[in-house]
Amino acid sequence: MADMRDMQQAVSLMHRLGDAASEAILPHFRKLEAVESKLEDGFDPVTVADRGAEAVMRSLIEEVFPDDGIIGEEYGIERAEADRVWVLDPVDGTRAFVAGLPTWGTLIACMEGGVPRAGMMVQPYIGERFWSDGTVSRWSRGDEGGVLETRVCRDLADATLFATAPSMFTGAQKDAFEALADRVKTVRFGTDCYGYAMVAAGHGDIVLEAAVQIYDVAPFVAILDAAGGKLTSWSGGPAASDHTALAVGDPALYETVQAILSGV
Amino acid sequence: MADMRDMQQAVSLMHRLGDAASEAILPHFRKLEAVESKLEDGFDPVTVADRGAEAVMRSLIEEVFPDDGIIGEEYGIERAEADRVWVLDPVDGTRAFVAGLPTWGTLIACMEGGVPRAGMMVQPYIGERFWSDGTVSRWSRGDEGGVLETRVCRDLADATLFATAPSMFTGAQKDAFEALADRVKTVRFGTDCYGYAMVAAGHGDIVLEAAVQIYDVAPFVAILDAAGGKLTSWSGGPAASDHTALAVGDPALYETVQAILSGV
Repeated sequence: MADMRDMQQAVSLMHRLGDAASEAILPHFRKLEAVESKLEDGFDPVTVADRGAEAVMRSLIEEVFPDDGIIGEEYGIERAEADRVWVLDPVDGTRAFVAGLPTWGTLIACMEGGVPRAGMMVQPYIGERFWSDGTVSRWSRGDEGGVLETRVCRDLADATLFATAPSMFTGAQKDAFEALADRVKTVRFGTDCYGYAMVAAGHGDIVLEAAVQIYDVAPFVAILDAAGGKLTSWSGGPAASDHTALAVGDPALYETVQAILSGV
Repeated sequence: MADMRDMQQAVSLMHRLGDAASEAILPHFRKLEAVESKLEDGFDPVTVADRGAEAVMRSLIEEVFPDDGIIGEEYGIERAEADRVWVLDPVDGTRAFVAGLPTWGTLIACMEGGVPRAGMMVQPYIGERFWSDGTVSRWSRGDEGGVLETRVCRDLADATLFATAPSMFTGAQKDAFEALADRVKTVRFGTDCYGYAMVAAGHGDIVLEAAVQIYDVAPFVAILDAAGGKLTSWSGGPAASDHTALAVGDPALYETVQAILSGV
């Protein structure tokens, strides 16, 4: 952002987007009629909630910042060349959502020059959110809240590793994931956006994922950065640049993990 | 239960136990100091919350029904030969709890003659509960609530399968799990008690687990039964009798799944 005031306005809009998305999504959670299938032959459910929430977020952004760009999981790209681009994933974790599990979330990021500067994850059913204003990362739930800080984890043997599903890894990526999984204390699947949020909050140490898009991870680049962690692609490029994501809470683990992933 | 009034009193106590456990557990969720290790060399975290919640539930049961038996995950067995035995797992999903994920729950079951007649799952952080009075299964969250009913799923190819972790299956059980996983539409890990609750609520179709104890599944025997489903061991015995659990929402799937598990 050019200055502090721009950032304050952007963060204020993120909260409004989170509120609007929550209102659009909640009536559809655990309602059985809302599921349709995106692919004829695969399982990629997307809900009425997903589309409704993205539409309402897009129109709010266009109303407040008409020159900003938007990249949305459901309705695509507009003004990608703008100075500031909003990245939206109304329901990250659609499979969790469809299965009634409370581990999905609404993801909102604010990028400049292709880099996420601020970001937010909202869980409408639980009523909690995690966000960064580019300087400090915070969480809140009703009147409660606090600063997010990653935890110290110097030794991989002490680490908790999160991933959404073993099936997201195939071929060489599967071998790399398993090599890492063999070295950590515990592996937890089924985490979706909560994996990144809990690393930022100091309750886990690593997230490793494949087949990710920019809208799956963009807010967490900003959230992890301000919380003391790091989120990149497996090879150290921008997160999701090659559809991979590696998050660490303690940057001291980063090189060790990368060496394992590259088979060094 | 001998009669309706006994059952009403038992269900009323279950709600009080759920309230008391929530109060004991919540101050410790996402607080980093509360974790201790049960095993020297393994990862089996148990929290201050776990022990505090079981202690408060045990004393409530002893106050209201001093002749009843208790089986608890933390403090063991008392009066197992009693007509009525309470089965308690204060924090089912301790790994989720320790990782800050909201998929753990407090489990309470009321057994007669070794059979779960009523049961409850409470998720204190989200503030929702799922329970059965032996006749009807229900959920509630604040002022909201409703009846739990499993969904129709005639074809395994349409089924959503839940399990807590792939690592719970080893040897022949791993082969059996994978044979089943290959036949369903989608597999979701990381579910803990939510897997059973969501099958009861009609958002999933099958839970398959190994290495389970009676306190991990007892309430769901009653909840699934009244919701239209079924929960047994893999081979059709009482759930957890050989440390396995198979839950189906649509009993029409039951024999097909069993045949796959037994390699027929």
